[in-house]
Amino acid sequence: MGIRAAANKVLSLQQMANSAEVLNDLLGYPPLAPVPIAYNFLVPNFKGMQNFLNAVESSSPEGDSAPITSPENPTAPPTPPPSPPPEKGETGEQAPITSTEDPNEMPSSTSDVDDPVQPGKSSAASNQMEVSLFTAATEAFSKANTNCSIAESLERCRPIVSLAKSRNIRVRGYVSVALGCPYEGSDVDPHKVAEITATLLEMGADEVSVADTTGMGTAPKTQELLKALFAAGIAPKDLALHFHDTYGQALVNAVVGLENGIRTFDSSVGGLGGCPYSKGATGNVATEDLVHCLHSLGGHTGIDVEKMAEIGAWISKELGRPNDSRAGKAILARLSSK
Amino acid sequence: MGIRAAANKVLSLQQMANSAEVLNDLLGYPPLAPVPIAYNFLVPNFKGMQNFLNAVESSSPEGDSAPITSPENPTAPPTPPPSPPPEKGETGEQAPITSTEDPNEMPSSTSDVDDPVQPGKSSAASNQMEVSLFTAATEAFSKANTNCSIAESLERCRPIVSLAKSRNIRVRGYVSVALGCPYEGSDVDPHKVAEITATLLEMGADEVSVADTTGMGTAPKTQELLKALFAAGIAPKDLALHFHDTYGQALVNAVVGLENGIRTFDSSVGGLGGCPYSKGATGNVATEDLVHCLHSLGGHTGIDVEKMAEIGAWISKELGRPNDSRAGKAILARLSSK
Repeated sequence: MGIRAAANKVLSLQQMANSAEVLNDLLGYPPLAPVPIAYNFLVPNFKGMQNFLNAVESSSPEGDSAPITSPENPTAPPTPPPSPPPEKGETGEQAPITSTEDPNEMPSSTSDVDDPVQPGKSSAASNQMEVSLFTAATEAFSKANTNCSIAESLERCRPIVSLAKSRNIRVRGYVSVALGCPYEGSDVDPHKVAEITATLLEMGADEVSVADTTGMGTAPKTQELLKALFAAGIAPKDLALHFHDTYGQALVNAVVGLENGIRTFDSSVGGLGGCPYSKGATGNVATEDLVHCLHSLGGHTGIDVEKMAEIGAWISKELGRPNDSRAGKAILARLSSK
Repeated sequence: MGIRAAANKVLSLQQMANSAEVLNDLLGYPPLAPVPIAYNFLVPNFKGMQNFLNAVESSSPEGDSAPITSPENPTAPPTPPPSPPPEKGETGEQAPITSTEDPNEMPSSTSDVDDPVQPGKSSAASNQMEVSLFTAATEAFSKANTNCSIAESLERCRPIVSLAKSRNIRVRGYVSVALGCPYEGSDVDPHKVAEITATLLEMGADEVSVADTTGMGTAPKTQELLKALFAAGIAPKDLALHFHDTYGQALVNAVVGLENGIRTFDSSVGGLGGCPYSKGATGNVATEDLVHCLHSLGGHTGIDVEKMAEIGAWISKELGRPNDSRAGKAILARLSSK
């Protein structure tokens, strides 16, 4: 079962300069982590993909033809830059918010590490870079978000996917506003979503995240959307669901996804995020709330929800934002009363 | 389908002086409302029940033998006291947070009103008083909350129920910490909950609200609890479910209740509330979030969710508390952008 941090929220279109800086920092000073990390970068266009490849490949000792994620070409982790001291109860092993942790999809790694009390801690060698491409389910949102029609945005994606796949880089497609659009309302055609999703997969995308950007999604609409996706021949394993908890329905909708065989869900620690094109939109569903729910249903995520709650409180404080995870706050309150 | 405001949260044990004042105000100056209102009062002991009856019956023109809720004994509504000016978009017809609106259970009423544009507006005559009695599913919580054992608390309830029923007053029982206890943990025996619930119903309680006071409830635990309740011979119509959204699971759990035939759910506008005996406990699930969910599933509640969102924002502001309803805030953001 995969839980993905919403890297795209941090590295938004408005922040490409910062995104490049983040990329260079991660390549130069990959954080140590107990499991391999997938870093997900939003690529807005072909030029962005070229810049991304140049940065990644110039950091590789094998030069620009090296497969970036290959364990056969390890990049020795240099000395990490100074980091903030860990909070009470933290072990300093949290993933940064720009990472995606998904133990199910990462190659296993037990590289040599400098901290003997953390078995299985990975080096940068087994980390993975992936790129994200955004499309939208409505013409109005596509125009506002990418300044082109849906068809044009798909045609822009095609050479990017080809280039990424030629370098063994994983590609994740997104279909925004799949369950409600701030411009066109809540009745988004599920068959249109299925058509866009199928097109992205046919191009070579490894996975498509179908996104309820506005949080307008409901249980019946989620059910209807999944039915349309499956009817278009798309397998659950090629899909992720991405819910925003704007109307408080994210977990109800996620359970519908689970019941339909979906095993990858996007979320954001502390409920961080939002959408500049969707007024009033809050962040993705909080990772802590989702993990608590999945665990309660008997799911295995590989995530320590208490540690995740600590991360949520820490990052919210660092960013000066309220911690928007209910489970996170409740778990911390329970821990503090022990 | 019934949605109940969490009157008990406002009229808590700590505030019995205020509770009496609220009662006297409501009896003296019943607010006009488009539908009959049920006022729910927490009665902690037999003396409390006597005080309640004295107040209610002394306000009745027929004296102390008058059935309080009988439409044949109308109390003409006197001039209401000064109230705050309505907010933008309000019509001044919101129910106060101490009310319970449940159109399914109220006698219909089309009494004469002073506002011809509000058809069916009720006077105080068709309003209803009901009393609430609290029990708990664990010995430790019972001790902390009512200073007696579960068995003792049930024996204290018996004469109160008898007195209430002798005066045609509706009785609502509560079983607190039915899905998790701050003292005894998350493994509360569902058979114990069923036994307490059955005892309250056998005494004459009209309905029992089974309460997830701590928010520790999960979908599987809710399912297991309902199974135990039904196995004890309790009908869905005699039950209400009362979820706190402390861990963000309230709607997921409510959907499990719905699927099992439960049609009455407690909630609190703006997610107001908490529990003095349950550290970190947040309020009941927000009415706006619950109603949005129920409507999305095709339910009919009789509630205008946009008006409810306005009430949530208004009362939160009045109380100086954050508005804890996700749907409420999202609906208001959407309305303000129109």
